[in-house]
Amino acid sequence: MYDVKVYVTYKDSVLDPQGEAVKGAVHRLGFSEIDEIRIGKYFEIKVREAAQPIEAVIEEICDKLLANVNMETYRYEIEEEA
Amino acid sequence: MYDVKVYVTYKDSVLDPQGEAVKGAVHRLGFSEIDEIRIGKYFEIKVREAAQPIEAVIEEICDKLLANVNMETYRYEIEEEA
Repeated sequence: MYDVKVYVTYKDSVLDPQGEAVKGAVHRLGFSEIDEIRIGKYFEIKVREAAQPIEAVIEEICDKLLANVNMETYRYEIEEEA
Repeated sequence: MYDVKVYVTYKDSVLDPQGEAVKGAVHRLGFSEIDEIRIGKYFEIKVREAAQPIEAVIEEICDKLLANVNMETYRYEIEEEA
């Protein structure tokens, strides 16, 4: 059993209007020290042992489903459960 | 300057129908080894040095804005930029 964490974020070249809006709200709360906020998606996935290597499984799922690879990038961490 | 990463997830006791839907889609792609998917939010925040400790700033922003503390929990990582 593996615990996988996937982080999907916009590429740096892509504007993040939702992040900009949250930054505005944070400034209105009084936190002017916040310079930038970018918002991404976060997935916690539990995976059973399979025939394929776990990395291949995760990358195929990310490419096909979790990330829009035109606008987003992803990274992941795999942790084997005891 | 600090790089802060915030992860907001539903509490374990709260159902995550969006995660269930994605799990269904993953199974239809043929990945039956995926046991569970839970979806959260992910924030990358750049913070300038401030009078208050950075942890206090981040926790106040999370409590007031980024997380619904009734249903969600959050954790964060702070990295000081060189």
